[in-house]
Amino acid sequence: MKINNNFLDLKDSYLFSTIAKKIKEFQAVNPGVKVYRLGIGDVTLPLAPAVIEAMHKAVDEMGVKETFQGYGPEQGHDFLRNAIVDYYATKDVKVSSDEVFISDGAKSDLGNILDILHPSNKVLIPDPVYPAYVDTNVMAGRKIDVAKGNQANGFKPMPDENYKADIIYICSPNNPTGSVYTREELKAWVDYANKQKALIIFDSAYEAFVGDDKLPTSILQIEGARTCAIEFCSFSKTAGFTGTRCGYTVVPKELVFDNTPLNKLWNRRQCTKFNGVPYIIQKGAEAVFSKEGQKQIRANIAYYKENARIIHEALEQKGIWHTGGINSPYIWLQCPKGMTSWEYFDHLLTKANVVGTPGAGFGEMGEGYFRLTAFGDRETTLEAVKRILENS
Amino acid sequence: MKINNNFLDLKDSYLFSTIAKKIKEFQAVNPGVKVYRLGIGDVTLPLAPAVIEAMHKAVDEMGVKETFQGYGPEQGHDFLRNAIVDYYATKDVKVSSDEVFISDGAKSDLGNILDILHPSNKVLIPDPVYPAYVDTNVMAGRKIDVAKGNQANGFKPMPDENYKADIIYICSPNNPTGSVYTREELKAWVDYANKQKALIIFDSAYEAFVGDDKLPTSILQIEGARTCAIEFCSFSKTAGFTGTRCGYTVVPKELVFDNTPLNKLWNRRQCTKFNGVPYIIQKGAEAVFSKEGQKQIRANIAYYKENARIIHEALEQKGIWHTGGINSPYIWLQCPKGMTSWEYFDHLLTKANVVGTPGAGFGEMGEGYFRLTAFGDRETTLEAVKRILENS
Repeated sequence: MKINNNFLDLKDSYLFSTIAKKIKEFQAVNPGVKVYRLGIGDVTLPLAPAVIEAMHKAVDEMGVKETFQGYGPEQGHDFLRNAIVDYYATKDVKVSSDEVFISDGAKSDLGNILDILHPSNKVLIPDPVYPAYVDTNVMAGRKIDVAKGNQANGFKPMPDENYKADIIYICSPNNPTGSVYTREELKAWVDYANKQKALIIFDSAYEAFVGDDKLPTSILQIEGARTCAIEFCSFSKTAGFTGTRCGYTVVPKELVFDNTPLNKLWNRRQCTKFNGVPYIIQKGAEAVFSKEGQKQIRANIAYYKENARIIHEALEQKGIWHTGGINSPYIWLQCPKGMTSWEYFDHLLTKANVVGTPGAGFGEMGEGYFRLTAFGDRETTLEAVKRILENS
Repeated sequence: MKINNNFLDLKDSYLFSTIAKKIKEFQAVNPGVKVYRLGIGDVTLPLAPAVIEAMHKAVDEMGVKETFQGYGPEQGHDFLRNAIVDYYATKDVKVSSDEVFISDGAKSDLGNILDILHPSNKVLIPDPVYPAYVDTNVMAGRKIDVAKGNQANGFKPMPDENYKADIIYICSPNNPTGSVYTREELKAWVDYANKQKALIIFDSAYEAFVGDDKLPTSILQIEGARTCAIEFCSFSKTAGFTGTRCGYTVVPKELVFDNTPLNKLWNRRQCTKFNGVPYIIQKGAEAVFSKEGQKQIRANIAYYKENARIIHEALEQKGIWHTGGINSPYIWLQCPKGMTSWEYFDHLLTKANVVGTPGAGFGEMGEGYFRLTAFGDRETTLEAVKRILENS
């Protein structure tokens, strides 16, 4: 028996374990010193009351023979698929319910989608970026090139007409940079992909943080996207579902490669290797779209966005170059005084007792940058920002 | 962009859609005639009260900041991994918690495990069998051979020393045949796999239906299994979790191929392409192992097993050759009077108004056989059995 030896090409990631180790060491030497964490990528507010209520009701249904739910459709229950269709309609996007696949989170589907694509495809991934895009393709042995983000392009790399790619990753609003592509910029990517017959893997996990009406919250708002893009979204950051696990993937029917609709292939993949999301969780996700649910989750997002605004404005006043923080929960800043990502990490930890995430952990182009997040509470955010400014 | 063209080699399965179509046509011509369904593979009893209570409590925790659960470990929460370790101890099997991976069901992990194995491996799959084993390997382009089940071996094919396989599938108690390997028979498979350096994919989804102490409920009860087998189990049939979605996969640390521990590869796969099972669901699964939970789920299993016994005894009395029905929820019978699987299906539907599953849907060796299940209610089972006997 042979293993998939592509796994041996994976680089071990020590980013978060190294951070944890450094904090532990600091606290051992400095007992009682409070550490302010703005490195966290997880939400901290509890689930909305409408979601809690819907899940209690669903749990009760599961305990009674007449309302008990056994195997559901692998693609998700119609009540949730239809709620998502309606949500897209509010964005002026028309999708049909059989283009919507309910998942246990964007991370799963972003990895599993590669099952239906040939290993020989060449992949273009922005740098810096969420590391799983790279790792999942390394596992399949695909050749990967990077589209470089930098200050000149505001960490929004644009297509290079002379470069040929088969699979293109875009995450907007971006993790870790918080930058958001405009409609015109996304249109350039869509045109480029259609011209080359490439596929765009569009990660819209942070779409709910976009407040500016002029900015796109879905690639399907861009003309031509239905022939080149799959969209992956999640309730994790929209509704605090990081430990509740639900997301959705939209595979337009016009997406045809090698004369084969990807919607059909993905449906076959899911029916064979997946058995749907728990009924209870899908009922909770449905409640996110109710009138009360929307009001409640929007209030939570507004809370995080106010944290982001506080960080953004402070950096602006201090004249520290950064992206994000307006239509995104992430703020991506240039380390002051030419420090490397890890030097700045050590500096902030020891001088300001603040923890963030070194940009170098998101790719080579992240060196010299640093990520802060808005998912903490207000008090921590205010104090951390004050301390950062005093030490930058 | 090229698709994974192995998907084009998949055979479309029309088994359950054809069954549904035939029932619909029958009912259109025979309005008002009641149809008795023993074809169903889904559970029908509601979740146990202990599970319901635990999930209500977990839902409440998710609604309060202090007890809210965000991202959990990809491998599952310790409370559930440890409960499974303790469950294995009751089977005299020692596993450590970092060998246990919590999944959203055996179906997902049975498919996803193939990510860590090379596409060039040759696969040996019993016939008849759960169709996903074949389809998931076709998707990866692997060469597949079958180990033939028949009356002579009681639908328990045994290893052929002259045949070389890399990956071997075993499902015991078996779906669809209900047959259960003895310890000696499993030992022969384990020895064969170790000798050839092959990997056994062991599906123990129906282990809770084994009542005979002498029969194994885990391949890890067999000496030598830790160097050749991964075990996949599920709460679906044990505790009615078909729509609740939770299972577990045990990857022993001694499982080393190409000098690489599979436990490490699988951990990396799961950390990259999976984000864990919902906290609420894991709390429900934990309650399955509580004293009350065990009492309640064992009562449900006993109910289904009594259905199985009723079917088994009736066939026995009538002298119809069959397997299963004692330590399994499935009964696999030879179609009477030389009928093919579909001829017998049509015969039972029209003459007895009973629905079962044609054996031919589970592989070539299933032709001429028929599957009945014990997951219906008592009344339906009794009436269906009476009607089958009158028409066989």
